[in-house]
Amino acid sequence: MNKLKMVPLQNVRIQDSFWDRYLGLVKEVLIPYQWDILNDRLEDVETSHCIKNFKIAAGLESGEFYGAVFQDSDLAKWIEAASYSLAVYPDKDLENTIDEVIDLIEAAQQEDGYINTYFTIHDKSLRFTNLQEGHELYCAGHFMEAAVAYYRATGKDKLVCIMKRFADLICEEFSSAKNSKGYPGHQEVEIGLYKMYEVTGEVKYLKQAKMFLDRRGEQPNYFLEEAKRPGFKRIFDEFKNYDPAYSQSHLPVREQKTAEGHAVRAVYMYSAMADVGAEYDDGTLVAACKRLWDNMVKRRMYITGSIGSSGLLERFTTDYDLPNGSNYSETCASIGLALFGRRMARITRESKYYDVVERALYNTVLSGIAMDGKSFFYVNPLEVWPDHCIPRTSKEHIKPVRQKWFGVACCPPNIARTLASLGEYIYFAEEDAIWVNLFISNKAKFTVNNQELTLDMQTNFPYEGHTRIELKGKAFVKGKIYLRIPDYVKDYKILVDGGVIDSPQITGGYCVLELEMDQRTIDIHFDLTPRFVRANPLVKENIGKVAVMKGPLVYCMEEVDNESNLPAYYIDTSSKLLEYYDKELLGGTVVIKCEGKKVTQEGWDVNQLYSEQKITSEQKMLTFIPYPYWGNRKTGEMLVWVKEML
Amino acid sequence: MNKLKMVPLQNVRIQDSFWDRYLGLVKEVLIPYQWDILNDRLEDVETSHCIKNFKIAAGLESGEFYGAVFQDSDLAKWIEAASYSLAVYPDKDLENTIDEVIDLIEAAQQEDGYINTYFTIHDKSLRFTNLQEGHELYCAGHFMEAAVAYYRATGKDKLVCIMKRFADLICEEFSSAKNSKGYPGHQEVEIGLYKMYEVTGEVKYLKQAKMFLDRRGEQPNYFLEEAKRPGFKRIFDEFKNYDPAYSQSHLPVREQKTAEGHAVRAVYMYSAMADVGAEYDDGTLVAACKRLWDNMVKRRMYITGSIGSSGLLERFTTDYDLPNGSNYSETCASIGLALFGRRMARITRESKYYDVVERALYNTVLSGIAMDGKSFFYVNPLEVWPDHCIPRTSKEHIKPVRQKWFGVACCPPNIARTLASLGEYIYFAEEDAIWVNLFISNKAKFTVNNQELTLDMQTNFPYEGHTRIELKGKAFVKGKIYLRIPDYVKDYKILVDGGVIDSPQITGGYCVLELEMDQRTIDIHFDLTPRFVRANPLVKENIGKVAVMKGPLVYCMEEVDNESNLPAYYIDTSSKLLEYYDKELLGGTVVIKCEGKKVTQEGWDVNQLYSEQKITSEQKMLTFIPYPYWGNRKTGEMLVWVKEML
Repeated sequence: MNKLKMVPLQNVRIQDSFWDRYLGLVKEVLIPYQWDILNDRLEDVETSHCIKNFKIAAGLESGEFYGAVFQDSDLAKWIEAASYSLAVYPDKDLENTIDEVIDLIEAAQQEDGYINTYFTIHDKSLRFTNLQEGHELYCAGHFMEAAVAYYRATGKDKLVCIMKRFADLICEEFSSAKNSKGYPGHQEVEIGLYKMYEVTGEVKYLKQAKMFLDRRGEQPNYFLEEAKRPGFKRIFDEFKNYDPAYSQSHLPVREQKTAEGHAVRAVYMYSAMADVGAEYDDGTLVAACKRLWDNMVKRRMYITGSIGSSGLLERFTTDYDLPNGSNYSETCASIGLALFGRRMARITRESKYYDVVERALYNTVLSGIAMDGKSFFYVNPLEVWPDHCIPRTSKEHIKPVRQKWFGVACCPPNIARTLASLGEYIYFAEEDAIWVNLFISNKAKFTVNNQELTLDMQTNFPYEGHTRIELKGKAFVKGKIYLRIPDYVKDYKILVDGGVIDSPQITGGYCVLELEMDQRTIDIHFDLTPRFVRANPLVKENIGKVAVMKGPLVYCMEEVDNESNLPAYYIDTSSKLLEYYDKELLGGTVVIKCEGKKVTQEGWDVNQLYSEQKITSEQKMLTFIPYPYWGNRKTGEMLVWVKEML
Repeated sequence: MNKLKMVPLQNVRIQDSFWDRYLGLVKEVLIPYQWDILNDRLEDVETSHCIKNFKIAAGLESGEFYGAVFQDSDLAKWIEAASYSLAVYPDKDLENTIDEVIDLIEAAQQEDGYINTYFTIHDKSLRFTNLQEGHELYCAGHFMEAAVAYYRATGKDKLVCIMKRFADLICEEFSSAKNSKGYPGHQEVEIGLYKMYEVTGEVKYLKQAKMFLDRRGEQPNYFLEEAKRPGFKRIFDEFKNYDPAYSQSHLPVREQKTAEGHAVRAVYMYSAMADVGAEYDDGTLVAACKRLWDNMVKRRMYITGSIGSSGLLERFTTDYDLPNGSNYSETCASIGLALFGRRMARITRESKYYDVVERALYNTVLSGIAMDGKSFFYVNPLEVWPDHCIPRTSKEHIKPVRQKWFGVACCPPNIARTLASLGEYIYFAEEDAIWVNLFISNKAKFTVNNQELTLDMQTNFPYEGHTRIELKGKAFVKGKIYLRIPDYVKDYKILVDGGVIDSPQITGGYCVLELEMDQRTIDIHFDLTPRFVRANPLVKENIGKVAVMKGPLVYCMEEVDNESNLPAYYIDTSSKLLEYYDKELLGGTVVIKCEGKKVTQEGWDVNQLYSEQKITSEQKMLTFIPYPYWGNRKTGEMLVWVKEML
């Protein structure tokens, strides 16, 4: 399939009023802070032991493995993030640090290419014997992604060579009689193998990725069989009654119609299906991707672009089951959703995929990280009552305050690598065209019709609807620009060199501009007036409620701007949503206000639980801030879906 | 303290239009059906193995223990229920069956008096070494209750003698150096020991019950210490990080101010505190009971008289945290709440306790059992969407359909013993007075001022507000009748021999009638007009919603009487609640209807999850049936708290 191409990260330099605060954190805070954590240099966070595990596995230090079975992946994601940062901001010290840790990885690599500190330290004989829980392939996939990222950033191929040796071992192991039916318990290596194929041209990696997908869901179920083998050693007690749907191995992937099981596993797998499907021109695989995407985003996705309705097992449940206060909505799952959507947009050239990518990036990915870059949400609820978030209850997974670091620390480094690679999300390229997906101020280099040119995008999106794109340096020699028209934009205007395009040509949700040589400036005006959004009445949780959005940003009420007991507020949707930019608040943001009322405590005392007492209410102004910014001030209640005065 | 006295079960014969359908089940269905289950004679229910365990422990059969560590208690509760039934309906065959099983218990009793098949079969050396999980004392308590019930029903004291030997062993064991600080992980033996004290007069049992309560919550925590001992053998994996609050051992019982931890453990403990507190005239213990009661029923109780807001650990959470669709609200916890409330009413002579007892009995206790007596709810949600109740999700504990029998089968036999002893809930007695707590048609024998007399109560409560009490046989020689005036009755009228009592004397919520010798008939007229009830706006879940009640009965909407998507309904609280008796429906019940509207799907298709589409609605008539009857027809949605048109 003729996929749209990615634009190298080096070619895109972001400088944006909305994103800079986060991107600045990557280099200044996230990368050094997480490096300190991996090295256990910080005192008041959970022990990582990640680097130490590698030193022990390499025989450089003695000791026991510590951490989760997938602890190695934290290092991989850190290298990947640091590499993306290096691609944009060269930094010799950081590069040296990475080179050193690559040496350590090499030292921990076994003779035959194997890398995994858990099994190397614990018991080498158990390698690849517990695929459902072992996470060796998951960690391998992340190291492959890291290797490719570092190679693309620096041109250095040492980690790629290390990972080639491991990839070769994996190809051998999973073709051998011993493991001829095995596939990963947590998908990720398929993505890594595909990237390794991209940079090395080694087709067997592509084939291995496809093989893993093809085997998945075969009967009898591999994981159930594996667990019956003599010597099988369980790692997680709670996996005793393993449900194949948890890891999307309940059905062959091509036959899956609904998004099931652990949400992160699911979207990583779908991403790999898109990679492999496009490469093999495999219509049934791509069709399955489309079907699963539709089921997910049209029936099982939160308005914030998050997925996983059940706290237990971090999983999908069923259509329209979207509880706001007990959901999982893992940050990593939204990252995976964005990765999947980006792939689908490249394959299909349809903007609807990017509507979701943008939704995930602007809301749940960002809410995952505090504004100081030092604390993180795993779980992203849509309403929070801090005093109800009690350990050892059904709401124990909901945290009203971001946490410094987690024992299972997948989200923080995942956010880091996503922010560091934001430049990869803005554009796609073709020989004769540039595709604009996101509206973020940046300067970018392209080659269109063999002509190098520079594009300068300036915008205050999502707070203001005007984006200007200027072609600088050499001019365009007949080329096309595709501009994504977001699904939430009801009214827009596009001007080329000051002239309005009267009947813009729209294809797949993108506006196509065929530019002549002398045309240099494009002005895009989107109507980003704040709006009331409702959920399908089949979503039981949200009947009679509305959410407030502006562009892709979901807004929420916080106790600190309003009063406590947020569910007592009703919003008057017949009145106007008022917006203003408050430069002091939360580092500068657009605040939205609206008239409404609040149910009072009049007639009730604290000792009266039920009564025939009628409800009274009083007029109130409701204040909303962007959802990604919640929890950055005083701990308190938060609410996305507000009752509507009907 | 001068507690009100219980009226022996033998003296109360119920024949009541509301309750007969359930009481009939006890003798005809529950007792024989559960006996078959205990003996593993039914094929399509979970294996019990209970009787078999006793046979193995007695050396009569060989085999392994099977079932939960507290499996023995099922037999104890069955004997207790069967004994209550025998007290009212003598039955030689049943009595023989019980005598035989008592012989079996005796055969399984160890030399030193110990009875517990789990430890006897598994490893006798582990007896009393794991009090937090072992449940030996819990089972002992239930067997003590059974022994007392059988003795009171039949006068036969064999089981009492057996349990005296065990009680003696417990007193010895828990005075010995080895276990001088121990107390039960699941409270219940305190209740049993108190009853043993009542029938045997043996003060050491009372002292032991008090000692268990006194020790509870001492520092260092016994359970945490116990788990550190060499040889400690864990039974439940999930108890690894034991939280003392789970078993109310976080604080000395007299210092506890809020209802914490596992709800059933809590109310069993509070019941024992009331028993012991009254017996010792222990003001601080009774004050603690009052405080815990108030916290529970004024801040942490569902409108259905159920408790335990968290599915995880079946526990209390915090004030006003009352989610409707993910709660636990165990049937057994409501049974315990009723037991506690009955004790508090006897101590305080205040009717407010019985308002809760009645609420629990009429709603959650009854909803726990199907109308055919063969299936049961453990968990009693206030709203159910069957397709969201998915195993391995946060809602896995919610069942939309009653289950035949459970692996952990505490609720079914607990319901059986509660229904079989309903006669004990109606009255209290004093030398010169009769106290009327519940309005259930029955004939009862009393001795007032040394004069035997018969009381005949006739009522169609809770459907009709008129209750007639007639004194039959010998007349009253100056005595008092206390009539409970329920908290929900706004308007009432009491007549004695046809004459209206103008200014009835009310004390502690009871209307006191001082009857003369010739006065024989009391007519009570309660206004039981259906009503709208709201929750305190601090209950976030219920803001903007109302429940419909009639007398103590909570009503609910079921899909079968309405349409699917019940949360889309709004009720018009300015219109009247219409009621009528439908003799065909659910064995005959009062149905309530009300005007309202329903949000429609107009403008939405199934693939549209979020949109700016406005909500449309259409006029609808809403139909309600009593909450205890839900789930007895076609499986479907159920809803208690309905949105209010504001």
